[in-house]
Amino acid sequence: MDLKKITSPTLLLNKKICLNNIQQMADKAKENKLTFRPHFKTHQSITIGNWFRKAGVAKIAVSSLQMAEYFARENWKDITVAFPVNIREINQINDLAEEIQLTITIENIEAFEFLNKHLKYPVQFFIKIDTGYNRTGIQPNNLQLITQILKLEKTSETLNFAGFLSHFGQTYSAVGKEEIHLIYKDSIKQLNNLKDTFKGDYKDLIISVGDTPSCSIIQDDFLGADEIRPGNFVFYDLMQWKLESCSFGQIAVCMACPVVAIHSERNEIIIHGGAIHFSKESALLNGKNIFGQLVLLDENGWQKPEKDYFLTKISQEHGTLSVDAELIKNIKIGDPIGIIPVHSCLTANLMKGLYTTDNEWIDHFSGVF
Amino acid sequence: MDLKKITSPTLLLNKKICLNNIQQMADKAKENKLTFRPHFKTHQSITIGNWFRKAGVAKIAVSSLQMAEYFARENWKDITVAFPVNIREINQINDLAEEIQLTITIENIEAFEFLNKHLKYPVQFFIKIDTGYNRTGIQPNNLQLITQILKLEKTSETLNFAGFLSHFGQTYSAVGKEEIHLIYKDSIKQLNNLKDTFKGDYKDLIISVGDTPSCSIIQDDFLGADEIRPGNFVFYDLMQWKLESCSFGQIAVCMACPVVAIHSERNEIIIHGGAIHFSKESALLNGKNIFGQLVLLDENGWQKPEKDYFLTKISQEHGTLSVDAELIKNIKIGDPIGIIPVHSCLTANLMKGLYTTDNEWIDHFSGVF
Repeated sequence: MDLKKITSPTLLLNKKICLNNIQQMADKAKENKLTFRPHFKTHQSITIGNWFRKAGVAKIAVSSLQMAEYFARENWKDITVAFPVNIREINQINDLAEEIQLTITIENIEAFEFLNKHLKYPVQFFIKIDTGYNRTGIQPNNLQLITQILKLEKTSETLNFAGFLSHFGQTYSAVGKEEIHLIYKDSIKQLNNLKDTFKGDYKDLIISVGDTPSCSIIQDDFLGADEIRPGNFVFYDLMQWKLESCSFGQIAVCMACPVVAIHSERNEIIIHGGAIHFSKESALLNGKNIFGQLVLLDENGWQKPEKDYFLTKISQEHGTLSVDAELIKNIKIGDPIGIIPVHSCLTANLMKGLYTTDNEWIDHFSGVF
Repeated sequence: MDLKKITSPTLLLNKKICLNNIQQMADKAKENKLTFRPHFKTHQSITIGNWFRKAGVAKIAVSSLQMAEYFARENWKDITVAFPVNIREINQINDLAEEIQLTITIENIEAFEFLNKHLKYPVQFFIKIDTGYNRTGIQPNNLQLITQILKLEKTSETLNFAGFLSHFGQTYSAVGKEEIHLIYKDSIKQLNNLKDTFKGDYKDLIISVGDTPSCSIIQDDFLGADEIRPGNFVFYDLMQWKLESCSFGQIAVCMACPVVAIHSERNEIIIHGGAIHFSKESALLNGKNIFGQLVLLDENGWQKPEKDYFLTKISQEHGTLSVDAELIKNIKIGDPIGIIPVHSCLTANLMKGLYTTDNEWIDHFSGVF
C-alpha cells in the first residue's frame, strides 16, 4: 500500500481479508445447503458485488429500492429488498418488477391491498416476522393477520408468497457466543412453527434469516433455515469483533486519517476524521464509549498495537484519540493513523469509496448516487 | 409543497425561513461592524451560497480543502479553511492558493515549517486558540509557542499572519442563554488579551470567532471580535433549539419519511429513515435520548403538534417513532411524516440535496463529490 497516496480521510480495504470473508460464508452456506443471498447494504459496491459473483452468488438482498435499481443495472436479476415495503415507491417497484425477479417484504394489510391494486408485474413477497427484536414485523402468534394476508394472496394476480423473513437483530445486544446461539435457536423455532402451519398450502415457502452475528457464529446447524442474508461480514468491524462474530484479523476495513494536532499535555491526538467520515455510531469497549480503535498503518495494511487506544470524541470533521506518551513519541504531525470503525456499514456509506491495500479504488453506491 | 413528490426519505427546506436566518445574521454582523464570514459546512450548497451572496457575503469559511475547492470553482475568492491544516494536502493547498485568497489555520511549529518549505503561493494563516473547548488549538497562555510561530512568520515569504481564531464549542454543552453569554465573555477576553499582546507587531491582526449559539444569542456586544463564522444558523436544528439559539419556527429543515409500519400495541410507528439519513447524532430531550422530533407535514411545510413525539431508535434505514393512540389514529401506512433532525449539518451531509417547500431541488456538495 502506498501511504503517500493517502492525503485526506480514506477508507482502506484489505482485499484478501474481504475475499476470505466472502468465501468462508459462501462455503458455510453450501455445506449447510442454504441459499446464500448476501445483503449488499454494507459494501454497496459494483466491484465487490462482482467478487460475490465469482463465489457463485446470483441472489442478493438490499435495503432500499434505490439500491435495488443500482444493482439491477449491473445485471443482478434476483433481488430482495429486505425492508418493509414503502408504497409511495410504487413506480420504482413496477419498473424493477418488469426487469428482474423482485422480492419485497410485507407486514400489513394496507400495503398488500395497495400493491395488489397498483402492481403491473408479478413480485414475490415475504411476510416479515418479529421473533423478538421488536423493531418491526408481525408477531409470530398473530396467525389472524398472517392468514388474512395469505387469503388475499390467493386471489392476487401479482403478489406471490415466498415465505417468512426475519432479522434477529437482538443478537447485536448479546453478550458472547452462547447468547447468540440461544437467540438464534429461539427465533428460528418460531419461524419453523409458522412454516409447519402454512406449508400445507405453500409447499415451496422458505425461511429467510441471517444477521451477521448468527451466521458467523453458527457452524453447522442452521436448524431449518432455507436462506441466509448476512451483510456486515464482508467487512466486519469493531461491533462485530466485540460480539465475537469475528477475529480482529477478519476486519477488512480501516480508516486512514491524517494527524493534524498532538496535545502531549493531555495525551490526545487530533485527526482529520469525524462524524462525516465515521458516523456517530459508538460502542462500549473497555468501559468507555468509543467511536473507533487505533491501529498502526504500514506498507502491508494495518496492525493492532500492543495497547488499546480509542477514538473517544468526534465532531463534524475532528476526531480525538486518547493515547499515552509512549504512542505520541512515535507519531508526527501529518502521519496517517489507522482507525477500525465501530460500524463499517455506516462508515462505508459516508466514505463513498474505498482504497485497497493493493492500491486500487473501489466504488460505492453513495459515491455515485 | 407537493407532498406527492415525496416518495422516499427527503430533506425539506423552508426557503423563507432559511433566507430570514441568513438576513438576520447578516444584519446583526453589519450592525456590530463585524466581518460576516459564514461557515458553509452546514449547507454545502452552491444555490444556498448564492443566497448568501445576495445578502452581501463575499468571504466564507469551510471545514475541508475539498469543500474549499468546490466553492472556489463557483467563484468564491476568499475562503478560510477553519480546520487545523492537514499538511498531506499540500498540493491542493498550493492549487487553491494560486487561485484565491486562501486562509488556513495553524497550531504547531511542524505544520508551519512544512508549509513554509512547500508553499508556492502566499496564504494567510490564523493561529488557532483553545479558549476552553479543549478539542484542539494552542492554550492562550502558551505565549512561547505563539511567539515561536510568529518569529518564523517574520522571515516567511508565503505565510502571513491574519490573527487569532477560536471555536467556542463549549457553548454546545451550555444550559441556557446565560451560560452561553458567560462562555463567550470568558473566551473573547482571552483572545483580546492575545490581541493586545501582539498588535504592536501586527496592527491588522483580527479575532475570528463565532459558533452558532453565541452568534444567535448575543445581540449587540461582541466584545472586540472582528469576524464571525457561524454555520448552523442557516438551518438550525433540534440541538440549537434546545440550546435556545433559535425558536422552533426558525428551524428551516425537516426530514420527510414515509410510514412503513404501525405497531399500535406498543404505540410505535416505523418510518423509512435511519442512520444513513439522520446520522446517529442524538440529543437529550424530555429526559430521553432521541434522534429527532415529529412534526406534521402539510401543503405549506410542517407544524409542531400539541404533544411532543420523538424518533427514539434508528438503525441503518429504519426509524422508530414513540407516539400514542391519539396520533396513530390519524396516521396511515404510506403517509409522509416530518422529523426535525437533531443535527442539521450531519443530516444535510447524508441527504445530498434538499427539496424546498416551494418544490425546488437544492444541491449539496456531498451529492456531487
